[in-house]
Amino acid sequence: MENFTFYSPTYFAFGKGTENEAGKYVKKFGGTKVLIHYGGGSAVRSGLIDRVKTSLEQEGLPYVELGGVMPNPRSGLVYKGIELCKAEGVDFLLAVGGGSVIDSAKAIAAGSLYDGDFWDFYSGKHIEKALPIGVVLTIAAAGSEGSGDSVITKEEGMLKRGTGSEALRAKFSIMNPELTESLPAYQTACGATDIMAHVFERYFTNTTEVEITDRLCEAVLMTMVKETPRVIADPHNYEARANIMWAGMVAHNGIVGVGRSQDWNSHAIEHELSALYDCAHGAGLAVIMPSWMEFVYKHNVMRFCQMATRVFGCKMNFEDPEVTAKEGIRCFRRFLHDIGMPINFEELGAKEEDIPVLVDKLGLGDGKTGGFVELTSEDVASIYRIAANASL
Amino acid sequence: MENFTFYSPTYFAFGKGTENEAGKYVKKFGGTKVLIHYGGGSAVRSGLIDRVKTSLEQEGLPYVELGGVMPNPRSGLVYKGIELCKAEGVDFLLAVGGGSVIDSAKAIAAGSLYDGDFWDFYSGKHIEKALPIGVVLTIAAAGSEGSGDSVITKEEGMLKRGTGSEALRAKFSIMNPELTESLPAYQTACGATDIMAHVFERYFTNTTEVEITDRLCEAVLMTMVKETPRVIADPHNYEARANIMWAGMVAHNGIVGVGRSQDWNSHAIEHELSALYDCAHGAGLAVIMPSWMEFVYKHNVMRFCQMATRVFGCKMNFEDPEVTAKEGIRCFRRFLHDIGMPINFEELGAKEEDIPVLVDKLGLGDGKTGGFVELTSEDVASIYRIAANASL
Repeated sequence: MENFTFYSPTYFAFGKGTENEAGKYVKKFGGTKVLIHYGGGSAVRSGLIDRVKTSLEQEGLPYVELGGVMPNPRSGLVYKGIELCKAEGVDFLLAVGGGSVIDSAKAIAAGSLYDGDFWDFYSGKHIEKALPIGVVLTIAAAGSEGSGDSVITKEEGMLKRGTGSEALRAKFSIMNPELTESLPAYQTACGATDIMAHVFERYFTNTTEVEITDRLCEAVLMTMVKETPRVIADPHNYEARANIMWAGMVAHNGIVGVGRSQDWNSHAIEHELSALYDCAHGAGLAVIMPSWMEFVYKHNVMRFCQMATRVFGCKMNFEDPEVTAKEGIRCFRRFLHDIGMPINFEELGAKEEDIPVLVDKLGLGDGKTGGFVELTSEDVASIYRIAANASL
Repeated sequence: MENFTFYSPTYFAFGKGTENEAGKYVKKFGGTKVLIHYGGGSAVRSGLIDRVKTSLEQEGLPYVELGGVMPNPRSGLVYKGIELCKAEGVDFLLAVGGGSVIDSAKAIAAGSLYDGDFWDFYSGKHIEKALPIGVVLTIAAAGSEGSGDSVITKEEGMLKRGTGSEALRAKFSIMNPELTESLPAYQTACGATDIMAHVFERYFTNTTEVEITDRLCEAVLMTMVKETPRVIADPHNYEARANIMWAGMVAHNGIVGVGRSQDWNSHAIEHELSALYDCAHGAGLAVIMPSWMEFVYKHNVMRFCQMATRVFGCKMNFEDPEVTAKEGIRCFRRFLHDIGMPINFEELGAKEEDIPVLVDKLGLGDGKTGGFVELTSEDVASIYRIAANASL
């Protein structure tokens, strides 16, 4: 195990009706003037935004609001939010939505305390400070409610880039599984895929002797394998929704990945897909993640056997472990298909002839990207090709 | 899943050499005058206390010190510590040791900001505020480095009582597995037993549909089953020590127990043993926990089958599930025996004829204590009798 630090100081309030406590928590964490940030019309139509406003009013907290966050959140709205915060003297950001809304709020929070262009932070500059953030989560997926990460797409050139800082961790996150019940099956499945990807990118490591984090990773994965088909079959299954929602936080607040090298190449490779085609991040991951696995599994066959047997219940083939390793990957792809996810370019709406463009935008050039297996541009092209032509 | 809140704002610094950063973290979290609190001579003899002092001096932080914390920490030293903090204007407590030292420091931290008798907090009064605490952990066991709990023994009558408050959570915890390598095998095994007990007391629940926390519990338990025999065989196995140390934190900071009813009766029943015989808490748990399981398993045979198959790899007996349930308990007791733990009263140094005294001190009277199964005084006596006569 490698040396590490772990710090997850977010206060989580989980369960039915907790969104009505938003005002109480904003006050507890020192907010006096709030920007309510949200996405499309569903949070308004469902009455959620009104309930949040009521809870702020009950605490005597003034607010302004900024809706309109899109999936793959854009820089344009971030600039607008920063301007609004500065003009209105906002000192607390309340993100009501899923990962896109939270990530957008994080960018606004950092940009509001910075004189330069916020995009600097998504180009390598470290974020030292940001306005405090609170979350009312409506989608179990990104884990942004418990992480210090944020991903934004710059509209010029559709560049999708991420950043991370302790300063971006939410002060509190309100997680009511009921709020996810109205989510269509497709988006629910996208979220589940994203959650599993967050674990897999920590699971495939070159660090040895990390039994505790291996087992914690597998705990989240097994939960997703059990609970996801249940919510696809019945979107109003509160208990399954609750298990998935908490699993999504555990998957990405850091606790299952400490002390081990990680590999975030699948996320990076996917980002080019969702940036170019504006597809859902989770759908892109469903296409990329098993394809990445197929490309790299020979690097450590036994690790893939461990996944196959522990997570998907495959029988170990002791004569030919590669059979088990490949069966595990096949199980994962079948699972993704069964919950309604695309598994190749055609189902996603991507085109094999765009692969050179995708590789080019990833920007590796003649370099490599590190991880479980180091990848060159040609390797990435191979992964895209596997993804283009994948079948069950 | 039940509604819950979860808040674990401790900063964890894990790995080799991290104790040399103690001063840096005290400063980061606002300390200006420190009480170094520790136990017996080993922390002094090993040079650990000197290293911690040096790191404080490097940050220009003045300190006073108070050693002498005993296992099952006593009220007498707590009173002394409170007096010292008040007299010296201490504003930060640095606990260097295991659970006993940390729990003693927590009691001092709360008592130093209170005009009454600190024992009030161990008699039901809620702790609203406490001095900030930092930890340099030397034993993987109690989980006190990541929890808001504290257990103190009142010398008059040897009353062992616990308390819990968010105010008692450490600001930071430094966890260097190397510091645990000098621990004798017996104490190492006691610590491992305590860690497993912390998980079991969350695992045996009447709340249904808690797959994510079930799986997280099992992740910690399987890690302990794998790693504990390795450190008993080789105390200098850093990797096994590291896995156990992080497992010990995860077991008790709350994350594996959210949203479900819990059962802390084994801990309470054990406390009377360690209070009366001054035996190690972990050794007492090794005697009590499987005995409690034997007494209650019929309440939910399938949950015990789940433990038996998932944690101990037992084969499920579908014709007679009780066989599997009992086999799981037997596996646990055999595991405890194999790592050198006592499994009955004789091996622990307890006496069957004291059972009425033990039951009386627990103080249930004609009442019941809630949990997985509600227990009367007579039930507790039965559990003590099973424990008195247990064998492999």
